[in-house]
Amino acid sequence: MPLSSDQQAEIDVQRDETHTTRRATATGMEKHLYTAHPVLDHGFVRVIDYMGDDAAICQAARVSYGRGTKSVQNDEGLIRYLMRHWHSTPFEMCEIKLHVKLPVFVARQWIRHRTANVNEYSARYSILDREFYIPAPDMLNAQSEVNNQGRGAVLSGEEAERVLRILRDDAMRCYDHYEEMISQEGQQGLARELARMNLPANIYTQWYWKTDLHNLLHFLRLRADAHAQYEIRVYAEEICRLVADWVPYAYKAFEDYRMGGATLSATALDCVRRMLKGEAVTQENSGMSKGEWREFEGVMGK
Amino acid sequence: MPLSSDQQAEIDVQRDETHTTRRATATGMEKHLYTAHPVLDHGFVRVIDYMGDDAAICQAARVSYGRGTKSVQNDEGLIRYLMRHWHSTPFEMCEIKLHVKLPVFVARQWIRHRTANVNEYSARYSILDREFYIPAPDMLNAQSEVNNQGRGAVLSGEEAERVLRILRDDAMRCYDHYEEMISQEGQQGLARELARMNLPANIYTQWYWKTDLHNLLHFLRLRADAHAQYEIRVYAEEICRLVADWVPYAYKAFEDYRMGGATLSATALDCVRRMLKGEAVTQENSGMSKGEWREFEGVMGK
Amino acid sequence: MPLSSDQQAEIDVQRDETHTTRRATATGMEKHLYTAHPVLDHGFVRVIDYMGDDAAICQAARVSYGRGTKSVQNDEGLIRYLMRHWHSTPFEMCEIKLHVKLPVFVARQWIRHRTANVNEYSARYSILDREFYIPAPDMLNAQSEVNNQGRGAVLSGEEAERVLRILRDDAMRCYDHYEEMISQEGQQGLARELARMNLPANIYTQWYWKTDLHNLLHFLRLRADAHAQYEIRVYAEEICRLVADWVPYAYKAFEDYRMGGATLSATALDCVRRMLKGEAVTQENSGMSKGEWREFEGVMGK
Amino acid sequence: MPLSSDQQAEIDVQRDETHTTRRATATGMEKHLYTAHPVLDHGFVRVIDYMGDDAAICQAARVSYGRGTKSVQNDEGLIRYLMRHWHSTPFEMCEIKLHVKLPVFVARQWIRHRTANVNEYSARYSILDREFYIPAPDMLNAQSEVNNQGRGAVLSGEEAERVLRILRDDAMRCYDHYEEMISQEGQQGLARELARMNLPANIYTQWYWKTDLHNLLHFLRLRADAHAQYEIRVYAEEICRLVADWVPYAYKAFEDYRMGGATLSATALDCVRRMLKGEAVTQENSGMSKGEWREFEGVMGK
Repeated sequence: MPLSSDQQAEIDVQRDETHTTRRATATGMEKHLYTAHPVLDHGFVRVIDYMGDDAAICQAARVSYGRGTKSVQNDEGLIRYLMRHWHSTPFEMCEIKLHVKLPVFVARQWIRHRTANVNEYSARYSILDREFYIPAPDMLNAQSEVNNQGRGAVLSGEEAERVLRILRDDAMRCYDHYEEMISQEGQQGLARELARMNLPANIYTQWYWKTDLHNLLHFLRLRADAHAQYEIRVYAEEICRLVADWVPYAYKAFEDYRMGGATLSATALDCVRRMLKGEAVTQENSGMSKGEWREFEGVMGK
Repeated sequence: MPLSSDQQAEIDVQRDETHTTRRATATGMEKHLYTAHPVLDHGFVRVIDYMGDDAAICQAARVSYGRGTKSVQNDEGLIRYLMRHWHSTPFEMCEIKLHVKLPVFVARQWIRHRTANVNEYSARYSILDREFYIPAPDMLNAQSEVNNQGRGAVLSGEEAERVLRILRDDAMRCYDHYEEMISQEGQQGLARELARMNLPANIYTQWYWKTDLHNLLHFLRLRADAHAQYEIRVYAEEICRLVADWVPYAYKAFEDYRMGGATLSATALDCVRRMLKGEAVTQENSGMSKGEWREFEGVMGK
Repeated sequence: MPLSSDQQAEIDVQRDETHTTRRATATGMEKHLYTAHPVLDHGFVRVIDYMGDDAAICQAARVSYGRGTKSVQNDEGLIRYLMRHWHSTPFEMCEIKLHVKLPVFVARQWIRHRTANVNEYSARYSILDREFYIPAPDMLNAQSEVNNQGRGAVLSGEEAERVLRILRDDAMRCYDHYEEMISQEGQQGLARELARMNLPANIYTQWYWKTDLHNLLHFLRLRADAHAQYEIRVYAEEICRLVADWVPYAYKAFEDYRMGGATLSATALDCVRRMLKGEAVTQENSGMSKGEWREFEGVMGK
Repeated sequence: MPLSSDQQAEIDVQRDETHTTRRATATGMEKHLYTAHPVLDHGFVRVIDYMGDDAAICQAARVSYGRGTKSVQNDEGLIRYLMRHWHSTPFEMCEIKLHVKLPVFVARQWIRHRTANVNEYSARYSILDREFYIPAPDMLNAQSEVNNQGRGAVLSGEEAERVLRILRDDAMRCYDHYEEMISQEGQQGLARELARMNLPANIYTQWYWKTDLHNLLHFLRLRADAHAQYEIRVYAEEICRLVADWVPYAYKAFEDYRMGGATLSATALDCVRRMLKGEAVTQENSGMSKGEWREFEGVMGK
């Protein structure tokens, strides 16, 4: 369970309060506010706050005095234009603040996105909870044979059981020892900032994470991608659903131009042009390496 | 006048709309939303949006599930502690978006603060208005004789009149020529992106500017400081008033620890300690240069 | 002339000094060091310092102990792979520092790239030189009729002459008045920080500008692009030549994947696939707007 | 031992190569290049590259054409002035690139400094080594009783032994299981990106880390401070020694104005002024809380 009943009660209280505001308000997002959307076995994503909506993107792009055009079509067209031509600054005018609970090894990937604001739960100051990520059996994959940083087939049978047993046992034993070391009963008790070093990377941590829409979409493009590690991808996919409700035009443009799109090199564009003229282009006469050609075929849907 | 009646009407419409939200709402800030606070002769600052309040700073610092403590005293104490110990990340959890109209030479200083999001009115795309900053007579100072980047006494008499005449005439003439060059009546009309180069640096521009509270306070510390150029300082002072209404505890801590505080060097601290022991410390035996000693005396209120 | 003889002499002295170093050294870049490459009528770009080379990109990507592989082919392949898959961090491991002299209206576009370090010549502190950008006659274009932020045909005849005369006269007059206002002969003399406001945006400024290779390539992609304003594009093109000599593999990969490449939306990719199957795809059945279709045709070389 | 003999040999080869360059070269830093300075039981810091020196700071501050003044005194005075008045941009004109080997829990603190460039060894792609940080017995402290995030007295006797035994045994067992899970002998072998989650936070990782001098000094101010956790402080202290040899004037100014200095609040300044006038100021009449007063007394050296 991602939340204790006390935590859920705290959230419920906050969720029940409403205020009157003059600020731009996104109806689709209001319904998500404070709700903890579960991710993995103990994790969650919940929206703490947001700033702006689709209209705010246009308003900034136009440096408007008022709320801007009432024509919804104009706004959508402008947003698509901005996205297509990599005008990033108007998308920076929306902001989101999330509370995320996630395994440490996922947090370590996530934090590499440097343009966000972060407050993480401090294991120097506080005691971590006994919560570890243990993969579901269908997400327990072998090392990929073609891709050094990827997964192959799902493990099965005895091997899968052994792996799960190891992960569970080591997590529990390390946590038992963590508790034992910091305990002040009949002993001094090791400093928390030292004891935490005994905890494996599947322990859960949590943070407040705040970023603007442009940088969030960049994060989502990389982390909701099929090549991202599954354990961070599920967080990205959950956030995608939130963004779709928050700024629907921007999200649709993002799906079309970023997630579903592809960048072709000069060489690849030349191949496409030759193919459209009826030429039989193969890897050998393409000017691409084998790896590039394989990726090109993937994009071309062959 | 900073705003045309059309612009004022647009703002009024937006100001009259209210929404219901679950988000943290700062009552003191709501009253400022969209109001254009005049600065200099044609400029203004107005709040377009904000995220968070004093409680949101504490909530992030604690990585809380709910709204956090109900004890106002606790929140203020925590905020003071965070400010005193340079814990910057919780202050990054508040965000503000402003619409600012300002002279280009002020904008050039302002933009040096890189951690903000900006959308500026484009003189490549659009035609600039005929609005120039002309200093008020009591703000027309001579070059400082002691400080290369500062002002001395106020100019007076014929010299002041001549300066004002030059500034006004050159601005008007340059703008006349700008209009003449881009005009398409009886000629092709020069590209806007070229014609704008004829406009002097006191012409007004405008932008949407969005930043987090930590970076905003850093901006205010430098630009609301007595050594900042008057023309940017008046903007910073106006923003200070907004921040004081938005996050009153954070602003008070900022006044105490940043604006009103001072950083003493190891050498200066040593002098203070010696002075407290009754030693007569002078520049000569202080270990400081003359410049440093003068600044030290300023801080010590001598 | 971009440089006075004194300035040239200072540069020559520095250029003649050599040192022995253990650092990675790029032979192609050494020859450019300190040389002021002229841009526009009074501007220049010169390399003050650099860090890293192609091998340094690979070394960081591999987190190597030594200089890494001696196989040049491996390094080029790795660099192409990193560029193709948007692995930006290894490119951040190279750094460049430039001294640039440029018109203020170009500087205002340039500074929008926030991830660089900048020290600009201070017109608050110092007196600006009488140097203004006056476009060459073949670069004096009319406003574009199709693109609000673009240029059309070159101005000709009397209109061109009038524009050039205005630009020259206003620049000279504004500068005369600038000098007159700050003069301390027989008067107090206006503060420099105020007097500068009378100077039009084609006056030259200069700065030290330092950035990493990843962010530099992003800058070049946007500013060496055909849609960038000519006056900034010529700076970007000059820098492109420097980068090609500095990190030749990275630059070639950049040309192939970024400058010469194109991003296709999901819709555009689908059209390409349909076209390759022999279907007659038109704007009407493409799912694209007219604007998008026109851009798509451009990319496809129709 | 921080380095294997192979790694040391690779470093030695690189260290023996020298090149001729026109770039600013810091003699004091050349001697450190590539040398792995040991930190903790298996970690190290080594300089991979650097850009600039003390003179480069001044050159940028002056936007100079040449190498600037030959007067060493002028340079030192300027650097002190810049540091004292928080002129950060000239310090950003120096850059350093380090290769650091460090425990994961230290890396997690370190990465919070967002303005650096980082390439970390990938445990998704590669297999981690069996190297764990085990504290030296005199660095094995109890939890502080006054400071939630601090250490108290050193553990002794049986408790210390038990803690060390736990840390060693859990590390070895977790690593054995890591190896067992990824092994492909007689089984499929778990994906590396999953297996790594079983490794505790005292395992060593390594990265290339590049930052500018301004941000480096900010990092050092926080992490070489007495309140920083010992395990990151020793890295910061090692880097301090490198910086002292690289940019001696900047480092001395940093020691005086930052490391050895202190920021006094408006309230604290007022107390100092009252004390200098002979008034007996106590916590009760100081206007400070007990915590603030205790810190104030610490600064005043009471």
